[in-house]
Amino acid sequence: MTGLSLASSGSNTKPLSELAVDLFDQLRAATFDGVGITRECYAEGENAALAIFRQTAADFGLVTETDAAGNMIIRAPGDDGSRPAHYVGSHVDSVPQGGNFDGAAGVIAGLMCLIRTEREEATLGAPVRVIALRGEESATYGRANIGSRALFGGLSAADLAARSRGSGRTLREAMQSVNIDVEPIARQEMLFDPRQALSYLELHIEQGPVMVARELPTTIVTGIRGNLRHRRVVCRGEAGHSGAVPRWLRKDAVFAFADLVSRLDDHWQTLLQRGLDLVVTTGIVSTDPAEHAISRIPGEMAFSFEVRSQSHDTLEAFYALFQAECRAIAAQRGVSFEFDERVYTEPARMDEQVVARLQRAAIACGLPPELMPSGAGHDAAVFANAGIPSGMVFVRNANGSHNPQEAMELDDFLKGVEILYAAITETK
Amino acid sequence: MTGLSLASSGSNTKPLSELAVDLFDQLRAATFDGVGITRECYAEGENAALAIFRQTAADFGLVTETDAAGNMIIRAPGDDGSRPAHYVGSHVDSVPQGGNFDGAAGVIAGLMCLIRTEREEATLGAPVRVIALRGEESATYGRANIGSRALFGGLSAADLAARSRGSGRTLREAMQSVNIDVEPIARQEMLFDPRQALSYLELHIEQGPVMVARELPTTIVTGIRGNLRHRRVVCRGEAGHSGAVPRWLRKDAVFAFADLVSRLDDHWQTLLQRGLDLVVTTGIVSTDPAEHAISRIPGEMAFSFEVRSQSHDTLEAFYALFQAECRAIAAQRGVSFEFDERVYTEPARMDEQVVARLQRAAIACGLPPELMPSGAGHDAAVFANAGIPSGMVFVRNANGSHNPQEAMELDDFLKGVEILYAAITETK
Repeated sequence: MTGLSLASSGSNTKPLSELAVDLFDQLRAATFDGVGITRECYAEGENAALAIFRQTAADFGLVTETDAAGNMIIRAPGDDGSRPAHYVGSHVDSVPQGGNFDGAAGVIAGLMCLIRTEREEATLGAPVRVIALRGEESATYGRANIGSRALFGGLSAADLAARSRGSGRTLREAMQSVNIDVEPIARQEMLFDPRQALSYLELHIEQGPVMVARELPTTIVTGIRGNLRHRRVVCRGEAGHSGAVPRWLRKDAVFAFADLVSRLDDHWQTLLQRGLDLVVTTGIVSTDPAEHAISRIPGEMAFSFEVRSQSHDTLEAFYALFQAECRAIAAQRGVSFEFDERVYTEPARMDEQVVARLQRAAIACGLPPELMPSGAGHDAAVFANAGIPSGMVFVRNANGSHNPQEAMELDDFLKGVEILYAAITETK
Repeated sequence: MTGLSLASSGSNTKPLSELAVDLFDQLRAATFDGVGITRECYAEGENAALAIFRQTAADFGLVTETDAAGNMIIRAPGDDGSRPAHYVGSHVDSVPQGGNFDGAAGVIAGLMCLIRTEREEATLGAPVRVIALRGEESATYGRANIGSRALFGGLSAADLAARSRGSGRTLREAMQSVNIDVEPIARQEMLFDPRQALSYLELHIEQGPVMVARELPTTIVTGIRGNLRHRRVVCRGEAGHSGAVPRWLRKDAVFAFADLVSRLDDHWQTLLQRGLDLVVTTGIVSTDPAEHAISRIPGEMAFSFEVRSQSHDTLEAFYALFQAECRAIAAQRGVSFEFDERVYTEPARMDEQVVARLQRAAIACGLPPELMPSGAGHDAAVFANAGIPSGMVFVRNANGSHNPQEAMELDDFLKGVEILYAAITETK
């Protein structure tokens, strides 16, 4: 068993890179599902991963505790937990059949930083604590960032009543199964005093292809894109015989949709040229399977709509363009658009001073101080929006995330950890 | 029972308009399925409709026979069937839950013309025969115009082996169930000598909205659009996190599809302005339900493609544009297009002299000699492509066809019958 190679005290002298490899191996062995990695939150996989971190912390003489939302805090023995600290961490859970690095890399990075501060007896301006969060992925309960939201009163009654797509039990039941007192969470109490965190720092694999394409091992995140969504928009036209209705009498829902997407694509290009941060997606698109046919003019087209940006104003501006184009196309093509509930997730800005500190740290480590936005959501957004100065380091990763093919090189990961360590030990 | 009101001999003096109403009523009563009209070919509904025509013919002293493909021929007692004749008719079958007029109106129109020639002892240049065709609709076996194709060696082994979407039996079995000798059909023998038909004339409801929109009770058909189709084209891009992949790294299958359709729409408009006959449809469109998500860049988009025109050259020209745009978009957006089998159905031109004769007949009846193409397929296309001078009269009809809401006014129908009668009795 890999764990046996670790000493049982703080005197463990294993190189940190080997420790990282060991931890990734242990996590993989404990939570491989036959296809990928599954660590369902408040359930077996996530619990198993937390147990590995708890054991490792103990092996290195560190102290672990569980916060009021079931997340794990790891601190140095000399830190009694009472003083404001830098929190370094990420999430422990994964999507079903996901990858080994999404989330776990940030927890391991935090642990490596903490162990190194102990080993090197580093002079710290403030304590460093690792935070291993539960329930970041939305795959199980349809709600992301459960573990961090719970700390700041951010879970609703509906969230707690949501049922796991796997086991079918409610989030409330799942939380109770790991001995969380759900009542304060249900009352949306503040269970983490933002003043206790001088910063929240999170290392995470990039979930897109930008860093591979630009050959950047690490980047500093400027902000986390929020989004505006409709799960389902229906464009309604008029069905008809594909041969018997000429163009001037058609109300073709697919042609109307194509016109809409092409116009949005033009707006998107224009706004990018103006320097705005923006991505646009219609991920789910379909004519009505109960009605559609090759020789039938499609009378209905359903599609999802999503726009993401780091800027609230950009989100709203693009949404207004979307609505205006729908109105114009409705008038021009004789169709109508029906929208379900508009869902808004606010963007989060990383703290300017934290970003500057991470950039200085990168430069100190001989790494490029490149900035980029995060398109995916992260717990750092929850901490930032709770008023805690937050920052993130992205590590290059091929093949995206949420799949077993995610591929982070150990060297890149270690570079990211270097940046974090330089940032928390910066004497300035 | 409605049939009792009809006399049992050629001396029946019922007004023809009442006969038409009676026949439509009888057909509806015999083949109403609870929702619409169902007359599956070579099966109960079509057999029931043919029985009604057979009885009516007998009531009026007419002679019925069954041709080598199971279609019914009705002729005057003074016509021994040996001389070349004008054939007037349409099809007897319907789609499931269809309407009462699609097909049957043309058979009733032929019967009314034949009865009227007898009643009025009209001087005819050639005999007039009614042809009541089986199996025009493709709904049951995926092949249209079965009854007419069978006459001209136009059914393949695959057609005969196709199974009914209802009963599951093969077309061969279904044909045998109504005592058709399938072997000559399987050998693709010519079972109808084209020289025996001086013309084929078909009255049919319009299946589009043009005549309602243009307030035309009747029109003369210039040709029947053929089509070029792909049942399934797949645009393949690259899936990815919708937040984490910027525009420049995207290979979005939906945006590529929208771009394609918008370009085709532009070409379509341009070609219409040049006076070409053209309709374009992508009736079935979908992202991959096994993979798609609101927050996932769609890596795949499947769609059907169909272009229809009266002109073979226009079909091929538009198809070439379609292919060129697919290539351009593939290059520009990093996607690829995969095409299944290209399916071609040739257009058919109505005979110029027959069209002119029908126009003269319309004018003689005080009706507009308006011309229009048929977007839907018809048995007239099979007769025309077999070398028989063919023509069609369309009758105004609301709500399209292939549904129980199709709505033809009796007055419009009678105007169409007037045109047919004037055409077959023209002495010029």
